[in-house]
Amino acid sequence: MSVQEQGRRAKAAAATIATATRATKDAALRAMADALVRRAPEVLAANEADVTAGRDAGMSAALLDRLALNTYRIEGMAGGLRQVAGLPDPVGEVVRGSTLPNGLVLRQVRVPLGVVGIVYEARPNVTADAAGLCLKAGNAVLLRGSSSAERSNAAIVGVLRDALSETGLPADAVQLVEASSRETVKQLMRARGLVDVLIPRGGAQLIRSVVEESTVPVIETGVGNCHIYVDAAADLDMALEILLNAKTSRPSVCNAAESLLVHRAVAEPFLARALPALRDAGVTVHGDADVVEAGGRRGVPVLEATEEDFGAEYLSLDLSVAVVGSLDAAIGHIARFGTGHSEAIVTGSVEAAQEFTTRVDAAAVLVNASTRFTDGEEFGFGAEIGISTQKLHARGPMGLSELTSTKYVVLGTGHVR
Amino acid sequence: MSVQEQGRRAKAAAATIATATRATKDAALRAMADALVRRAPEVLAANEADVTAGRDAGMSAALLDRLALNTYRIEGMAGGLRQVAGLPDPVGEVVRGSTLPNGLVLRQVRVPLGVVGIVYEARPNVTADAAGLCLKAGNAVLLRGSSSAERSNAAIVGVLRDALSETGLPADAVQLVEASSRETVKQLMRARGLVDVLIPRGGAQLIRSVVEESTVPVIETGVGNCHIYVDAAADLDMALEILLNAKTSRPSVCNAAESLLVHRAVAEPFLARALPALRDAGVTVHGDADVVEAGGRRGVPVLEATEEDFGAEYLSLDLSVAVVGSLDAAIGHIARFGTGHSEAIVTGSVEAAQEFTTRVDAAAVLVNASTRFTDGEEFGFGAEIGISTQKLHARGPMGLSELTSTKYVVLGTGHVR
Repeated sequence: MSVQEQGRRAKAAAATIATATRATKDAALRAMADALVRRAPEVLAANEADVTAGRDAGMSAALLDRLALNTYRIEGMAGGLRQVAGLPDPVGEVVRGSTLPNGLVLRQVRVPLGVVGIVYEARPNVTADAAGLCLKAGNAVLLRGSSSAERSNAAIVGVLRDALSETGLPADAVQLVEASSRETVKQLMRARGLVDVLIPRGGAQLIRSVVEESTVPVIETGVGNCHIYVDAAADLDMALEILLNAKTSRPSVCNAAESLLVHRAVAEPFLARALPALRDAGVTVHGDADVVEAGGRRGVPVLEATEEDFGAEYLSLDLSVAVVGSLDAAIGHIARFGTGHSEAIVTGSVEAAQEFTTRVDAAAVLVNASTRFTDGEEFGFGAEIGISTQKLHARGPMGLSELTSTKYVVLGTGHVR
Repeated sequence: MSVQEQGRRAKAAAATIATATRATKDAALRAMADALVRRAPEVLAANEADVTAGRDAGMSAALLDRLALNTYRIEGMAGGLRQVAGLPDPVGEVVRGSTLPNGLVLRQVRVPLGVVGIVYEARPNVTADAAGLCLKAGNAVLLRGSSSAERSNAAIVGVLRDALSETGLPADAVQLVEASSRETVKQLMRARGLVDVLIPRGGAQLIRSVVEESTVPVIETGVGNCHIYVDAAADLDMALEILLNAKTSRPSVCNAAESLLVHRAVAEPFLARALPALRDAGVTVHGDADVVEAGGRRGVPVLEATEEDFGAEYLSLDLSVAVVGSLDAAIGHIARFGTGHSEAIVTGSVEAAQEFTTRVDAAAVLVNASTRFTDGEEFGFGAEIGISTQKLHARGPMGLSELTSTKYVVLGTGHVR
């Protein structure tokens, strides 16, 4: 079936899902969870075929691990759906309301977006997570996963669609878009009037191409060149703990730190401890001249950082490091190289914290906390569909509210202007 | 100067404007208002040259009227700036905040968008209005007006920039983009990384081309094929009054009605009154077969409506009219031909009102009120930059809040995850 035709079906299904009650949607979410667990053998068999094909094609161990499902991971997907069922329904929430001087009653009400397109890479759990969040927010969803996970995704979507039908909701509210060619991504990007928003989740290149080419509105997610700035007034023990957590606790995610900035006043004592600690944690440091020199003095090898290093989202155990002369220089460096995701300062100074949080332009600005906290669950949103790094519509972790729009409802008694 | 270079200057200015206090911004707005009044002769002389050139080029009387300034209109622009100075500052507003279970203090704070690009047509008052709203919301603005108003716009922007400088704010927060070629609109659309959002205000064609080609995020505004649906349970006196108001009070604006749908059960009595009343008001009716026949019976000429008529935003004293068999058919017609701007039902039935407001997908859905009420000032927002007909970021009249984004500020005490 063409993406256009899938879009038409999704649009028709969206009209039904949009007005479904919370009780119906939650029943569908629970039915989806139960069905995933009940039909786990089917899903695992499909996934096994994907994993075998991936291994034969020489896929890396890390990617294979992201691709592979097991009973535990399927339980996790089911648990995610049940958790979403437990969240409040964003649809119908009155965002603001008042009675105007002329007696008109005005309400701004949260409504679904309509049809959401999601383009994502290997991880098959995104299939169930995204479908659940979109459904709860009253949207239909077109899921375009990676071709390497296509059998797994097809099996999961098949299970979810059956559960929708059993609950009396249109199965076409959840559809998988064929992943065999890049053409289907292009078709999604051009499905203006059928798809209301496109959310690319994945590498910088995918996101850039969608942003450049899409005529459907896009929410950019996830590219994170996140900085930890160790201020002159930092508690260096705290700074080191935050740095190691932000860099090493999960290097492959977008809220991991990729760059360290150290104020010159504390560079000597901080790098003396940080460089060996980073080495011991398996981190490769790419430093400016000051850092290379500091490494040399301590016998810790430091690679020379290029401009590309300072702009890189490594997603690996690499870190760019620069010494800066002032808070102002740190803010300037972040403005130049940051991607507007998460930026942290470690400082004991109220003034420095205030200036940093005011002037740094990013989705999340953290004081004395690891960048790893920028996350929908951590922020208490219950679940997230991604982390927006753009300024329109949603910025930062996107929960259910961010999958909605609003509508003004105006009640009069024959009012004319 | 190239648009790129203007964008760079705007971005630099935006960093200053973003952190300016409300007192400073309001002082600048008042200085801008005073300067416009004081230097009115300059502005009027430039406008006179535009008007003369327009008349020589055969511009229509309606367009010449939109283009022409006079002392009264300049006072109006100054009044608009003073009104914006009186509005609360959206920047810094805490949208939500809580202390997370782990003790992290989370705040979502309103921040400026950065650099706003506005592409608009003849009316020079938009120049001052848009500059004022963007400044108050902490943004720099690139204004790309029409070439027919270029002298007027240059004079106004010159006055505003001087007032900014006198207040100690960077003049580059307000810049006029050259209007001599379409190329500058394209450059604005491609100024990703410099321009944060582009707002096209104007005809459907301009908006379509910006939406199709822009890599900068766009907020669509204003195309309004607005419907009045007269339900079976309508008070026909009320319906006629609302129809005439929505169609004739100001036919050239986006919230004017362009299409009338009448339930078959009341078509005969309603059209018997509406068709002559519309004729008397100078309205040309484009009707379906039922309406043509009803016109024939009453001796009121009705043109045969085509598909194009039902999709048209006339912006003139024309109206498409169709008879529908049910509320469901009316909702289906609106889903097919509407532009998601403002849709009104006239009904005495709670059920019909409920179904219409729930199922019709538009920025504003009105019950027993004229579509003309969809307006930032009417809604109590103080002023508006346009009316968004898209679902992302802002939908409906956009006031100061809609010219902002948000940022999460997270305060910890050494938190790691």
